[in-house]
Amino acid sequence: MKKIINQTDDIVIQMGKGMALAHPDKIEFEEKYKIFKRKTINPKKVALISGGGSGHEPAHAGYVGTGMLDAAVAGDVFASPSSVQVYHAIKQVTGEAGCLLIVKNYSGDCMNFDTAAEMAEEDDLKVLSVYVNDDVAVKDSLYTIGRRGVAGTVLVEKIAGAAAERGDSLENVQLLAQKTIEQVKSIGVALTSCTVPAKGTPTFDLGSDEIEFGVGIHGEPGIERRKSMTSHALAVEMLDLLIGELGLTDEDEIVVMVNGLGGTPLQELYVFNHDVRAILSSKNIHVYDTLVGNYMTAIDMAGLSLTVLKLTDELKALYDAPADTIAYHK
Amino acid sequence: MKKIINQTDDIVIQMGKGMALAHPDKIEFEEKYKIFKRKTINPKKVALISGGGSGHEPAHAGYVGTGMLDAAVAGDVFASPSSVQVYHAIKQVTGEAGCLLIVKNYSGDCMNFDTAAEMAEEDDLKVLSVYVNDDVAVKDSLYTIGRRGVAGTVLVEKIAGAAAERGDSLENVQLLAQKTIEQVKSIGVALTSCTVPAKGTPTFDLGSDEIEFGVGIHGEPGIERRKSMTSHALAVEMLDLLIGELGLTDEDEIVVMVNGLGGTPLQELYVFNHDVRAILSSKNIHVYDTLVGNYMTAIDMAGLSLTVLKLTDELKALYDAPADTIAYHK
Repeated sequence: MKKIINQTDDIVIQMGKGMALAHPDKIEFEEKYKIFKRKTINPKKVALISGGGSGHEPAHAGYVGTGMLDAAVAGDVFASPSSVQVYHAIKQVTGEAGCLLIVKNYSGDCMNFDTAAEMAEEDDLKVLSVYVNDDVAVKDSLYTIGRRGVAGTVLVEKIAGAAAERGDSLENVQLLAQKTIEQVKSIGVALTSCTVPAKGTPTFDLGSDEIEFGVGIHGEPGIERRKSMTSHALAVEMLDLLIGELGLTDEDEIVVMVNGLGGTPLQELYVFNHDVRAILSSKNIHVYDTLVGNYMTAIDMAGLSLTVLKLTDELKALYDAPADTIAYHK
Repeated sequence: MKKIINQTDDIVIQMGKGMALAHPDKIEFEEKYKIFKRKTINPKKVALISGGGSGHEPAHAGYVGTGMLDAAVAGDVFASPSSVQVYHAIKQVTGEAGCLLIVKNYSGDCMNFDTAAEMAEEDDLKVLSVYVNDDVAVKDSLYTIGRRGVAGTVLVEKIAGAAAERGDSLENVQLLAQKTIEQVKSIGVALTSCTVPAKGTPTFDLGSDEIEFGVGIHGEPGIERRKSMTSHALAVEMLDLLIGELGLTDEDEIVVMVNGLGGTPLQELYVFNHDVRAILSSKNIHVYDTLVGNYMTAIDMAGLSLTVLKLTDELKALYDAPADTIAYHK
């Protein structure tokens, strides 16, 4: 394993401090509980908290800021933050308007965020949660009951964040987050494995002409091992799945996110976006906006995921609202 | 070679179209001459053009927009655009205020941009050029006489772009770009080679415990092959070189850019930034701003470069001016 790190135990703390040092106008990093916090907290609005295992950078610290999250809680690499960490994040950013937890649907995350919510409720804080499950690849897997939460989480954070920023009630922010979750689907593909620093070797092996279709963001197995294929062939198969799941027709308007998994050149993401657009255009599905980049990664994995959000007028207004975070500008 | 592409011959065109489809509010892509052009051209201000071989995305198309470039010309992967391509870019964006070419110092780029400038001058257009040579690793190399131009180019584009936007004359924009070039230095390190699509195999081989110290953005050899080292040890050596070159003292204020080379997880870039800051802090060198991300890549190379810009009051005012492009927001 070659990585630009010091001791593997220190990665999350050093990364967190390095991030706060780079963006002092946007975030603070609290080392004790590994909490990334918005520079200025507005106690009158609903607070939004997400988080999860590290290794998915810029998620979620990169989405802390105006129009998105108030705090992100970081676990160790690919491990959920503890309930105590999440509890302290809730305590630090939640005012009388309450707090919404945006949880990716992994068993460990669900358990720890739920326990933290119960702890905070005993302090008379109002806490609600949503569970993002946008990955259409598998139902139930190594770390999940039900579907996994992946890059679509960023769009849930965007839309719920806009609702919170305009002053919606906690119940309404939760409702809009839930509506977004129902309209957002993703599918990923890996060309290489990731290497978890503490392990030091690749999580799985892929032959020189193989890809993992439907891979998860921790290197979990996907739908099947396949022979390498062209960008266009990949786009056809991935879009087929997403269009089917969302029941998209030529009357629909969507947001497309082409997400690099950490080791993928931007060049390939844009080539793939070209193929995605050609296929969508042939089906008369209108693309309202496109995001291309590394939004939710799997450390150094080569590969990408494709996310489609089906818009309604209600969601579109929130999608269009300003956001100013390290990794998302609108 | 596993890449998400179609035919290798089509990569630049498909990437360009995919990029314009993703960011229709910011850029247009002209397929014939592979020119990325600002959506709205202001004929009264000095036009700024950069470009070079593809494979360094988001450079340079990602820096076309308000406060930075008016056009970026794309060659094939790691090959200079032709003089005809550059000439057409000049023709398309240059008004009576003239045009500044920001050229990375590679023999092919210099030759073709210079020829294009001569062709445009025959059409009575005013064209000046600057040549960026921020890479302190080597003097003269495979593709260069003198030092190579690397990630510091982005900061030259930022500062010259701000000067052009505020209405400076062509001569003044050139002068400010030149002052920036004199104050910006970079050094890179590779953990893996890149793979040029048309070749299909890695450009060079590195052992499992080796790094290439001083690597160029095309995989050119650097200062020497070394044993892997910690992030902190790397930061010490890289900063030593840059501080020495710039003659930095505890009275200086700098911009730091930690640039991923394409295959490097953001996690590592932030860990490295943490080490950089600890060292700078011990030397009382003040960091005015930090950029962390993939700004000037070498396709899929794992590794990073470190760039330091020594600020003056004059440059700082321009650095602070707004910029709104695909890959740079200020």
